[in-house]
Amino acid sequence: MTTTRIEKDLLGTLAVPADAYYGIQTLRAVHNFKLSGVPLAHFPRLVIALAMVKQAAADANRQLGHLSATKHTAISTACARIIQGEFHEQFVVDMIQGGAGTSTNMNANEVIANIALEAMGHEKGEYQYLHPNNDVNMAQSTNDAYPTAIRIGLLLGQDALLVSLDKLIQALAAKGLEFAHILKMGRTQLQDAVPMTLGQEFRAFATTLGEDLQHLKCLVPTLLHEVNLGGTAIGTGINADPAYQKLAVERLAVISGHPVKPAADLIEATSDMGAFVLFSGMLKRTAVKLSKICNDLRLLSSGPRTGINEINLPARQPGSSIMPGKVNPVIPEAVNQVAFEVIGNDLALTLAAEGGQLQLNVMEPLIAYKILDSIRLLQRAMDMLRELCIDGISANEAHCRALMENSIGLVTALNPYIGYENATRIAKTALDSGRGVLELVREEQLLDEATLADILRPEHMVAPRLLPLAR
Amino acid sequence: MTTTRIEKDLLGTLAVPADAYYGIQTLRAVHNFKLSGVPLAHFPRLVIALAMVKQAAADANRQLGHLSATKHTAISTACARIIQGEFHEQFVVDMIQGGAGTSTNMNANEVIANIALEAMGHEKGEYQYLHPNNDVNMAQSTNDAYPTAIRIGLLLGQDALLVSLDKLIQALAAKGLEFAHILKMGRTQLQDAVPMTLGQEFRAFATTLGEDLQHLKCLVPTLLHEVNLGGTAIGTGINADPAYQKLAVERLAVISGHPVKPAADLIEATSDMGAFVLFSGMLKRTAVKLSKICNDLRLLSSGPRTGINEINLPARQPGSSIMPGKVNPVIPEAVNQVAFEVIGNDLALTLAAEGGQLQLNVMEPLIAYKILDSIRLLQRAMDMLRELCIDGISANEAHCRALMENSIGLVTALNPYIGYENATRIAKTALDSGRGVLELVREEQLLDEATLADILRPEHMVAPRLLPLAR
Amino acid sequence: MTTTRIEKDLLGTLAVPADAYYGIQTLRAVHNFKLSGVPLAHFPRLVIALAMVKQAAADANRQLGHLSATKHTAISTACARIIQGEFHEQFVVDMIQGGAGTSTNMNANEVIANIALEAMGHEKGEYQYLHPNNDVNMAQSTNDAYPTAIRIGLLLGQDALLVSLDKLIQALAAKGLEFAHILKMGRTQLQDAVPMTLGQEFRAFATTLGEDLQHLKCLVPTLLHEVNLGGTAIGTGINADPAYQKLAVERLAVISGHPVKPAADLIEATSDMGAFVLFSGMLKRTAVKLSKICNDLRLLSSGPRTGINEINLPARQPGSSIMPGKVNPVIPEAVNQVAFEVIGNDLALTLAAEGGQLQLNVMEPLIAYKILDSIRLLQRAMDMLRELCIDGISANEAHCRALMENSIGLVTALNPYIGYENATRIAKTALDSGRGVLELVREEQLLDEATLADILRPEHMVAPRLLPLAR
Amino acid sequence: MTTTRIEKDLLGTLAVPADAYYGIQTLRAVHNFKLSGVPLAHFPRLVIALAMVKQAAADANRQLGHLSATKHTAISTACARIIQGEFHEQFVVDMIQGGAGTSTNMNANEVIANIALEAMGHEKGEYQYLHPNNDVNMAQSTNDAYPTAIRIGLLLGQDALLVSLDKLIQALAAKGLEFAHILKMGRTQLQDAVPMTLGQEFRAFATTLGEDLQHLKCLVPTLLHEVNLGGTAIGTGINADPAYQKLAVERLAVISGHPVKPAADLIEATSDMGAFVLFSGMLKRTAVKLSKICNDLRLLSSGPRTGINEINLPARQPGSSIMPGKVNPVIPEAVNQVAFEVIGNDLALTLAAEGGQLQLNVMEPLIAYKILDSIRLLQRAMDMLRELCIDGISANEAHCRALMENSIGLVTALNPYIGYENATRIAKTALDSGRGVLELVREEQLLDEATLADILRPEHMVAPRLLPLAR
Repeated sequence: MTTTRIEKDLLGTLAVPADAYYGIQTLRAVHNFKLSGVPLAHFPRLVIALAMVKQAAADANRQLGHLSATKHTAISTACARIIQGEFHEQFVVDMIQGGAGTSTNMNANEVIANIALEAMGHEKGEYQYLHPNNDVNMAQSTNDAYPTAIRIGLLLGQDALLVSLDKLIQALAAKGLEFAHILKMGRTQLQDAVPMTLGQEFRAFATTLGEDLQHLKCLVPTLLHEVNLGGTAIGTGINADPAYQKLAVERLAVISGHPVKPAADLIEATSDMGAFVLFSGMLKRTAVKLSKICNDLRLLSSGPRTGINEINLPARQPGSSIMPGKVNPVIPEAVNQVAFEVIGNDLALTLAAEGGQLQLNVMEPLIAYKILDSIRLLQRAMDMLRELCIDGISANEAHCRALMENSIGLVTALNPYIGYENATRIAKTALDSGRGVLELVREEQLLDEATLADILRPEHMVAPRLLPLAR
Repeated sequence: MTTTRIEKDLLGTLAVPADAYYGIQTLRAVHNFKLSGVPLAHFPRLVIALAMVKQAAADANRQLGHLSATKHTAISTACARIIQGEFHEQFVVDMIQGGAGTSTNMNANEVIANIALEAMGHEKGEYQYLHPNNDVNMAQSTNDAYPTAIRIGLLLGQDALLVSLDKLIQALAAKGLEFAHILKMGRTQLQDAVPMTLGQEFRAFATTLGEDLQHLKCLVPTLLHEVNLGGTAIGTGINADPAYQKLAVERLAVISGHPVKPAADLIEATSDMGAFVLFSGMLKRTAVKLSKICNDLRLLSSGPRTGINEINLPARQPGSSIMPGKVNPVIPEAVNQVAFEVIGNDLALTLAAEGGQLQLNVMEPLIAYKILDSIRLLQRAMDMLRELCIDGISANEAHCRALMENSIGLVTALNPYIGYENATRIAKTALDSGRGVLELVREEQLLDEATLADILRPEHMVAPRLLPLAR
Repeated sequence: MTTTRIEKDLLGTLAVPADAYYGIQTLRAVHNFKLSGVPLAHFPRLVIALAMVKQAAADANRQLGHLSATKHTAISTACARIIQGEFHEQFVVDMIQGGAGTSTNMNANEVIANIALEAMGHEKGEYQYLHPNNDVNMAQSTNDAYPTAIRIGLLLGQDALLVSLDKLIQALAAKGLEFAHILKMGRTQLQDAVPMTLGQEFRAFATTLGEDLQHLKCLVPTLLHEVNLGGTAIGTGINADPAYQKLAVERLAVISGHPVKPAADLIEATSDMGAFVLFSGMLKRTAVKLSKICNDLRLLSSGPRTGINEINLPARQPGSSIMPGKVNPVIPEAVNQVAFEVIGNDLALTLAAEGGQLQLNVMEPLIAYKILDSIRLLQRAMDMLRELCIDGISANEAHCRALMENSIGLVTALNPYIGYENATRIAKTALDSGRGVLELVREEQLLDEATLADILRPEHMVAPRLLPLAR
Repeated sequence: MTTTRIEKDLLGTLAVPADAYYGIQTLRAVHNFKLSGVPLAHFPRLVIALAMVKQAAADANRQLGHLSATKHTAISTACARIIQGEFHEQFVVDMIQGGAGTSTNMNANEVIANIALEAMGHEKGEYQYLHPNNDVNMAQSTNDAYPTAIRIGLLLGQDALLVSLDKLIQALAAKGLEFAHILKMGRTQLQDAVPMTLGQEFRAFATTLGEDLQHLKCLVPTLLHEVNLGGTAIGTGINADPAYQKLAVERLAVISGHPVKPAADLIEATSDMGAFVLFSGMLKRTAVKLSKICNDLRLLSSGPRTGINEINLPARQPGSSIMPGKVNPVIPEAVNQVAFEVIGNDLALTLAAEGGQLQLNVMEPLIAYKILDSIRLLQRAMDMLRELCIDGISANEAHCRALMENSIGLVTALNPYIGYENATRIAKTALDSGRGVLELVREEQLLDEATLADILRPEHMVAPRLLPLAR
């Protein structure tokens, strides 16, 4: 009673588990690459994208008469099931692999072939009826099918990323409105500067991420929509039908729902990793911004007694086993670490991109791994930040106001009325004596109460206003 | 007989060299920061940009009635002379500096004030007639004037970069045409793959850099055209005239020749470094591509006897004191190193961007330094590569052809005619025996000479062609 | 019929799965941090190290009379089982987490408490009999227990890494011996240089990794043996018995088998990440060397017909679906990618280390994650490289010799006999005519055959030799 | 009347400025490489190290009888003058250069030859009397002389670095003593933790840098003392006298004052960059620590009114043109930026190290540049930090104490006396009511005044103490 079947390739034969939909070449790769422990199945969007590319190629081959209707139907059914989420556990090759993605491509070819064979009434492995290479991989090389699939996978991942980013922006903007009336001191270089509102501070967070949303939306078409499907081995399209490229890419656009189009220079497109470098650079930018925002949230909520304590983050878990009542800003802290991971991923990807040689970049599997990982980490981190932190932030309004009124920086607003020299003298006295700026101004009767009240009105403190001509 | 003059600031007095146009605050910065040894003057475009910003502010202040005609005229003359290249040696502060650029801004304020004072018939240092802060820096803070100047400086540098990039692309494209008829083997994973032309290889270099040219042109408006001039200290515009921002930015657009416009959210714009992160990410992408191209040039010219030797790079200098006749690919080697430097710069800049806190990023001087350095290095490296290498490359046409005809990879082109099994058998025999593929095919009479000649015609080998329906 | 139990902490109550050994704080962390998808259990050595630390603390607390014999026995049994590999699946918190490792520490505390409770005849969750914080975490803070556990985990991982590294060195050295007699051309800057043996080339690989083995062995004591156990919250040892630190660390040395010792400055040791930065820097160095070696292997095996082709790597899997007979260097390619990942990890870790603030580095979880990941990846990559590649490498001896004899670089060895000017002339003629250096020397009768044979004897070509005094 | 002389090399002739001590090959390199704008002369220690290597080689060649006494004397005099600081302006080649350092080596050879020629009574350029290659470069290749010089240059730089590091440590330790009596709150995760002294905080800074001092001292021998002088072109020692290596290295040890010794495997030593990678990794570690310390200084001095304000940094320059009285922490800010630059340098160096191929690493010039730059930047930054910041730091003792006494974290010290439940309740009440912990404890009469006073004695708060057995 056997639980394996024998398969054969260029290098000989191997016993494949009888119930496996993958075949001998996948198995060789599993034996060869035990590295990250992260299988292809960990990134469902990549698996779905592979099936979409195989479907598009099969459609084109059918239309050109190279693939029979029977085979086409069987392959189509197999691809559809994978796209719907079935058989993903059959994508077992490690994300880090040699061979420039050949193992990933063959994993897809073999799984699709065996699903199709069963649908045709054959046994798994009876490749004489439908072959992973000759039929599923027809008119393709790993070198065009794989980079095309990565692009489709990224487009699918990008959609989800944008949703999370947009929700986070809305949450920050809502806090911007909620805190619009809360006056506080702005700080530059961690030193007291001039007044602003807490709402302006949160709105700026929303604005800065909003710019990234726009950039991501804008860059996608130029970066990811050009695919090299049809270039085969090195972009010359050797052994491909002259009509194939156009048909296959058109089908892929329909199947994926993304308006992909043929690359203009297929030789270039085969080895070029520039799109991934720039996309990852854009993700790095978002990571840097998220990290800066989280640093700010941790600073503004520092204390409660010996820090800034202008805002409260929602408590998510006890902070210490030894210090009673301690609660920590765990959510922003985790986002910082995700940001560092994304920056590290960007470097690994950059090194891989630089490592391309002649007609191919053999490091493409690492590139796909790192960029898919960055997208997922960012998406999860943004959801976490919004749900478990931003939405629940409250402000210590009285404390914000007290800090501001006690601050020496307030004197800047008085500058145009009492003159720079008076202002500097008041600032110095305040610093030396520990007294308040307003108190000193009142004591010296430099301004009447009405003018002072007018200057200190929130709307006057935090925006440009018409001043008497100075000179 | 004194050679210094005494100046005074918040912290006391200092003796400034009598002939210096800079003043006490610049001198303090010179004393404080002896780090990189690279002064502001090393980047003339930044110096020019600072003068343009000062001019724009003075124009707006004049129009609003805050600055007298006399002072405005004197300031304008001073700015014009700096823009024309005078007084650059007076910009002496180190590129690496604390204080978020205050020292750079004050260096500009003081130099302009003293040039203006002399033009007005006063001595340097007689700030009672025209003051670096009150007049030159009027309605500005370092926090808006400095980032605006960096943007202008980058726009000026970008113009020059694009010219160099475009010329390099043209040179590569020209080689693509020159070598269009030279058949050679393509290589994937450093292993023999399928035929292509040397022209296709060089055209791909042109294409890939052409994409970067497009991206750089495209990104600039969204990245650099938004300036925060008018935001003053933290973006609230405190102490600025409500009409000032619009006027100042309009003037800056005219003066710089770049269509800058006011940032929508000035609080955000004051601390946000996202534009620099993405611009540097784009420069990193170009660096990665240049490095890959130079790696290829070094591979293709390796030998002359024990390497690939398909092309010859022009000899630029003797390669060895011990090995007679050795000449090395020194130009691409230098480009590789520039690329690594640019990638390192991008990291330093990323760290600096992540280090922003609350209403300001105090690491901005390093950001300006690294991105200006990357632009200049890339520009120089591209000019060097084009002039001293690409333009003089010649091809070893016969050797290219011989390698191809002797290659086993040729069998791929025969695949559709003799079948995959015959092809594999021929490949194996060739590899084991050391004999040629064509020789074996002829010996076995698998194809007649006419068909073989047809298949081997260059235009058939390096592009898709109509094949008999396989199935 | 309930399948959960209710647990309580500072923030309220939560329903924990009835069969879970972890408790409420672990569950909160699971809810909070869904990021990398990599749980603590993915790194068994870290889990084991946590149990060792808990055991050491319990031993010290027992000896000082703070922990009863009953509780000590139960905790000891629980720790022992974890150290033997049981219950690892209960370590469910994500490797990326906020809270500076509190969740990891509490995961350990809770699992140990519940195993102990069952051993004592109680139900899971009946913490009144034995408490995760009061008993398992007694005299500890996350801030001392967690960094100590990371160090122990690294020491365990380091042991395994050194074994793999040593085996790889032996394999390379063996090839060095096997190929000791094979003459070939050395290459500098990818250009033909002077003769050497293939054995020298492989021995150099062994030597360079041998230096890393020595460094790793040497650095470990200074980097990882100092632990901050006993420092509690911030290193002041608040609420710990003055005798506790010494006892606990002594026990930890016995339990772990590594001679750990107390840090001299516990305040410093609590927040300092320097040991991890340097250890990761050392791993990065090894990665760089492995990458360089694999680049060389790929270059030397390039071809078979249009590359260097001096050595053959064992075929591990078919290389192409479209190109018959193509086999690729997939194993070195995968090692390159691991190296890039390790370099990326080093950057993420560096960013995290720089992010420490005041008395703690809250980014420690990422640091632990990245360094453990790098160790494991490197170990696996080295095993793969040795088993699936190095051991099976064969040399193309005749081709090596032919390339050398045909090389112009050979002329350097004749230099001291025929003079530099003759040598340069011969080199030039050879290059222009395509003829061989030896052929030309013979033709011109510059050297008699006996001298020539003597010069060309392998042992004379590849080492210093006594030459006639030149001047 | 001519101002140039004509020189000749492999590629032809060139007019060299008549007063230049460098020659044609240097001039070619100057024409080829206009990149960083940083000439060799920018790093005097590298120039000195080159002269030391040339001296050592000349000594060995003289002793073996290959170099005449006259030539040896002339070369020695030339080297001595360079070592004393003369002629450095003649080292004009750009630090970034192709050719693996050949241009640097030839710059040294030519300058030394021409100084020597003049000493012998000849004109510059009359190489028939003493030749840059045949005499100055005798028995050397760039591939052994250059890496050896880099090592010597680093050893010289390292000496200076250690002095600056040691002084900084002493300055921090002195502040540790000065502030030993000042009680304050420790903070973890920016949240109030438990008491400590400000002295402990500064002592920890001294300790952490002290560890780096030890590591740097310890690593140097293993990293930099092994030199490959004598390996010539690729490490086989081709064309070198068998006795040469030992003699030359012995002389170099005497001349440099550093106990350098011959590398065991010269093939390996020729291409290996591992020493530089690890040394740079160590510098990166120091940079990370300096950055963390400066972040802390900026946090602790934040305010003065709306931040932590526990310490005052000495005022170094006015902080703002718009905000009266503002002074910023400019010195630590500059150190942060230096740290980022060093981390960026480390990456560029890592990329260059990874780019080595076969028998040489052609990216060595960038490696030398970046590591020398990092050493110098760190040294300057540490001197600046000590002189302009650390030495002048003062503490706000009363504010430190007030923050601590008002902090809820104080309750942790009471924990063992009033129990965890009481402590938690008190903490909660304090937080909700805004009242002080001690006030509440007194109100509830949980502890008598004598016990409270005892607990709150500084020496009891900041170290372990004997507690009643808890259980």
